[in-house]
Amino acid sequence: MRFDVAIVGLGPGADDLLAPRAAAVLACATDVVGYNAYVARVPARAGQHRHATDNREELLRARHALTLASEGRRVAIVSSGDAGVFAMASAVFEAMEHGNPVWRSLDVEIVPGISAMFAAAARIGAPLGHDFCAISLSDNLKPWETVLARLRAAAEAGFVIALYNPSSRARPWQLAAAFEMLRTILPQSTEIAMARCVSAPDERIEIGTLADVDPSRADMRTVVLIGTAATRRITRPDGKVWLYSPRGSAA
Amino acid sequence: MRFDVAIVGLGPGADDLLAPRAAAVLACATDVVGYNAYVARVPARAGQHRHATDNREELLRARHALTLASEGRRVAIVSSGDAGVFAMASAVFEAMEHGNPVWRSLDVEIVPGISAMFAAAARIGAPLGHDFCAISLSDNLKPWETVLARLRAAAEAGFVIALYNPSSRARPWQLAAAFEMLRTILPQSTEIAMARCVSAPDERIEIGTLADVDPSRADMRTVVLIGTAATRRITRPDGKVWLYSPRGSAA
Repeated sequence: MRFDVAIVGLGPGADDLLAPRAAAVLACATDVVGYNAYVARVPARAGQHRHATDNREELLRARHALTLASEGRRVAIVSSGDAGVFAMASAVFEAMEHGNPVWRSLDVEIVPGISAMFAAAARIGAPLGHDFCAISLSDNLKPWETVLARLRAAAEAGFVIALYNPSSRARPWQLAAAFEMLRTILPQSTEIAMARCVSAPDERIEIGTLADVDPSRADMRTVVLIGTAATRRITRPDGKVWLYSPRGSAA
Repeated sequence: MRFDVAIVGLGPGADDLLAPRAAAVLACATDVVGYNAYVARVPARAGQHRHATDNREELLRARHALTLASEGRRVAIVSSGDAGVFAMASAVFEAMEHGNPVWRSLDVEIVPGISAMFAAAARIGAPLGHDFCAISLSDNLKPWETVLARLRAAAEAGFVIALYNPSSRARPWQLAAAFEMLRTILPQSTEIAMARCVSAPDERIEIGTLADVDPSRADMRTVVLIGTAATRRITRPDGKVWLYSPRGSAA
């Protein structure tokens, strides 16, 4: 497999949800670059250099990877889920556009992965079964007003909403504020699922409604799925709940 | 692996983008149910029954699969990409809710997959790098007014848009109408990519702008990615183009 830089989505966590192409790329990279927890998921290989850094430093990490590649290394940049969804792919191209012009000549291979929201949806039923959107609730890189405006537009137009980065120690109040705003638009009975660490050993999935949802149950490893008025709940005889959004819902 | 019904996303087309979990489920199913072209992608196995039907019959197909499973068969229902995205998962739960009550007791396993839009994005750069949405342009199951209203809301709020089912013989004019409406909201320079059959031998990717995009280039196997005013183009020295949407774009 030919690449100077590979941007690899590791999937949600389970080994058997990692694409064989991703495994093949990781096996022939000379260097693996990424957030500590993601680099730790890559099987160790003799002679391979591992560069694990802190989560906040996406652009620095991207420049570091591009620099290594321009020196002749074969660099894999790893993200959880799909690398194109609130992850490293965008940061790499941002670094490329504003960085050393030779970086534009590098062979870049992007290996897609199974994103957290699809892994979560698969455990819950088919909550993303009609039109849907994905919003990062983080206001580190965009104004909070933009976050709220997009949430409002999505809810009013009838999109199912997948919220990434719903809560962190540095952003403790945003998710509660988002739910409060959504209560002015969506029915109180709107189905909401919080899915944490899907497919990993510490997976936790909680299903509730907009009326009773507890925002303190979410953290940075949680994806929050917010249904529409059309989203339905099916209860199994054993009490387990499925959610699905019918294919043909109008706004 | 234990299941009565498995709903399996086959990924975009390439064998090495199929999750090992999906391959394992397909290997132990007694019956495979799905649209002709997707069933044809499942490796043949001695003794396994294959039920390939026409694309329009999702609900009939779902009822057939649930009936087989309630008779003791182990049924895999296959979709392209991720089964939860404009595919079979929602139809299965719709059939379950309104069908034979014993169907609710079936063990249902959903195996997520790499969706067409993420596979397309990975070939193009990082066009889905900030908040984005997925809309089915088909008005078979929802009014065309709903489709247009969601497109308008998404464009006005600054979402990147992934359009599924953009065009077919029965729906030849909708994509042109969608672009016409979007030209009243988005800059003419807005980047648009049409990605057909990504990762398959007949892959075709075309990148243009809202001003010059040709809707007749799309068909049912195409995903159309529509950037925002923030989406950037990087041109390589060899002429190849990357698109990316910066992580921190405001509306």
